[in-house]
Amino acid sequence: MPTISNRGNQMPASPIRKLVPFAEAAKKRGTKVFHLNIGQPDIETPAKCLDAVRHSDFKILEYSHSAGNESYRKKLVEYYKRVGIDITSEQIIITTGGSEAILFGFMACMDAGDEVIIPEPFYANYNGFAVEAGVVVKPISSSIESGFALPPIEDFEKVITSKTKAIVICNPNNPTGYLYSAAEMEILKQLIKKHNLYLFADEAYREFCYEGTHTSAMHLTGVDEHVVLMDTISKRYSACGGRIGAFVTKNKDLLDAAMKFAQARLSPPSFAQILGEAAVDLPDDYFNTTKAEYKLRRDTIVKRLNAMQGVFCPNPGGAFYAMAKLPIDDSDKFCQWLLESFNYNNQTVMLAPATGFYSTAGLGKQEVRLAYVINVEAINAAMDCLEKALKEYPGRMN
Amino acid sequence: MPTISNRGNQMPASPIRKLVPFAEAAKKRGTKVFHLNIGQPDIETPAKCLDAVRHSDFKILEYSHSAGNESYRKKLVEYYKRVGIDITSEQIIITTGGSEAILFGFMACMDAGDEVIIPEPFYANYNGFAVEAGVVVKPISSSIESGFALPPIEDFEKVITSKTKAIVICNPNNPTGYLYSAAEMEILKQLIKKHNLYLFADEAYREFCYEGTHTSAMHLTGVDEHVVLMDTISKRYSACGGRIGAFVTKNKDLLDAAMKFAQARLSPPSFAQILGEAAVDLPDDYFNTTKAEYKLRRDTIVKRLNAMQGVFCPNPGGAFYAMAKLPIDDSDKFCQWLLESFNYNNQTVMLAPATGFYSTAGLGKQEVRLAYVINVEAINAAMDCLEKALKEYPGRMN
Repeated sequence: MPTISNRGNQMPASPIRKLVPFAEAAKKRGTKVFHLNIGQPDIETPAKCLDAVRHSDFKILEYSHSAGNESYRKKLVEYYKRVGIDITSEQIIITTGGSEAILFGFMACMDAGDEVIIPEPFYANYNGFAVEAGVVVKPISSSIESGFALPPIEDFEKVITSKTKAIVICNPNNPTGYLYSAAEMEILKQLIKKHNLYLFADEAYREFCYEGTHTSAMHLTGVDEHVVLMDTISKRYSACGGRIGAFVTKNKDLLDAAMKFAQARLSPPSFAQILGEAAVDLPDDYFNTTKAEYKLRRDTIVKRLNAMQGVFCPNPGGAFYAMAKLPIDDSDKFCQWLLESFNYNNQTVMLAPATGFYSTAGLGKQEVRLAYVINVEAINAAMDCLEKALKEYPGRMN
Repeated sequence: MPTISNRGNQMPASPIRKLVPFAEAAKKRGTKVFHLNIGQPDIETPAKCLDAVRHSDFKILEYSHSAGNESYRKKLVEYYKRVGIDITSEQIIITTGGSEAILFGFMACMDAGDEVIIPEPFYANYNGFAVEAGVVVKPISSSIESGFALPPIEDFEKVITSKTKAIVICNPNNPTGYLYSAAEMEILKQLIKKHNLYLFADEAYREFCYEGTHTSAMHLTGVDEHVVLMDTISKRYSACGGRIGAFVTKNKDLLDAAMKFAQARLSPPSFAQILGEAAVDLPDDYFNTTKAEYKLRRDTIVKRLNAMQGVFCPNPGGAFYAMAKLPIDDSDKFCQWLLESFNYNNQTVMLAPATGFYSTAGLGKQEVRLAYVINVEAINAAMDCLEKALKEYPGRMN
């Protein structure tokens, strides 16, 4: 029997998915499960965007241009201008989700054995793309006590070697919700200039900032050749299933290289490009409404968490995630126990153990990520469950 | 300025795309260009399939399961049963086009430095996926004189080393249109058993066979652990822009490994899964009509080509491609000349130089690929151009 590649063996399994069988079993027992574990928004996709697809009248579902439809790329130029990013349609490659933009960046900028620095905790799938590209992730720990602020510059300097090629920043951050300040972005700018590194900026949650304003990596001046924006419409318009993202850079050589990867896979999905193009014309208040809803949820969940004895949840500045430190022995065990052995009025809550977001073994054992992708009423009911659970959990500490 | 990776530099540019600027310039001069260069069918996507998407009534465009919607995978089991392939829905991972199925296979089965054998000429993008996976392509030449039949087994044996992990077969073939016989498939089966190799089967054109019947790699018995089907709905239903394919295998370990790659990129596109699911319920005569149309075109183009002095075109058994040997010095030069310096009644034809489909340098210089994705009338007009062009071309041989 032929064997699996080492890469196939090294490829990490989804850290959240391993809990799914326990959630399914709980549901089979009749227990209601509040899903705070995944970043699938419950906000409706704008009807205008779905209608654009539904009212399309082409006869042949053709390949689009490998860089995506020109009409969509031109429309995106308007969108980016509105958020203070000045680019041309030739500097955009439409990708199959933000995922593919990350993969193209890793592949085109780094070779096997090269190193990429990522502040941890970080989006777990960066690990997968790193394995695919044969790249080594060097984590720099940020801490819940500081609200997951950018680690000190010395921590970066310490791990930079001749093999370091890039830094990945997710802003606002998944999983922490942390919003990097303009000053922190400036520090990163100096770092990438000094060490001649790429800055990969995952800004999937750009519009969802509740404290202060968003500083895009594309706002940084004098580092046009260094900055790569890895974007997606998934969260912005609740359009995760569309699988439409964008690879954006002013670095011409990199664009040319990334286009070769884009050509190999022919084209991004056609239907959802129509949706993405329509989204740019949504009324100005679209994000205001969505943002107000997420802010209300954030305020609710953070307040509820911090009111629980022994729980600490820093106030996240953006995205729709909160990280909380719980008085527990082991977040993996706790999250499984919530599904397997606990219920409160026949309800329980599904959380993501933070261990899956740390690259350094042993970190995140007392932390969980909560995605506030359910409404305030459901959040309150979920927090009732969690509060009760923390009192009953056999592995409670202090 | 940070540098591009070696992988980014090695990534091949699309061999067809380099002619695009010349085609655009010809059109700007007012010359009509008959496109026989790409595999974008002109057949309409079945209205029933497009309507399934247009009449969908969900409110949130959610991530699907990483393996694709269960309802679609179950439906595909019916489709595969109809073509004599007996699998379960758990043995299918829905991919973003056939492209992603190929990438998953290369990534999960082979490590950097491993070798994959592919009879040439072959689909040029295999090269791109090989570069992404760090895998070395070992070509085995098939010849136009034999109609591109499977090269002798000894040719395979000669290049097999301890690093050889797989053989790729495209059946019916792109670019040659060759349909592998049951006997040839049996030879491949013995080979993969003897040397413990994977057989990657790209069967994108399964339904389009005009001589004899299709033998799927999944029909081979006793090699369940070896065979991987890399499938797509792109050509089958003229749905190239949907980006929906499938990775199919009975090898449980490989499925588990491939699922980790699928999870990293979250999910395949949601809209076109609806289209793919509806396609399985198309009436039985759907393929008959499409096939009859392609067969008529094949008969037309092959007859016209062989009627030209010094031209040889073997009769392709399937797909919608024909390869022709022309009395020319250099197919790249000739194809460019057709666009740049030739017209007949203000019309010309765009062909794909075969050099891009050969891995061995120097091969294919007298061959071109013609995709018969335009109707019979247009094919005849295109052949009028080609016939005239071959008489005028300064680099004509003999």
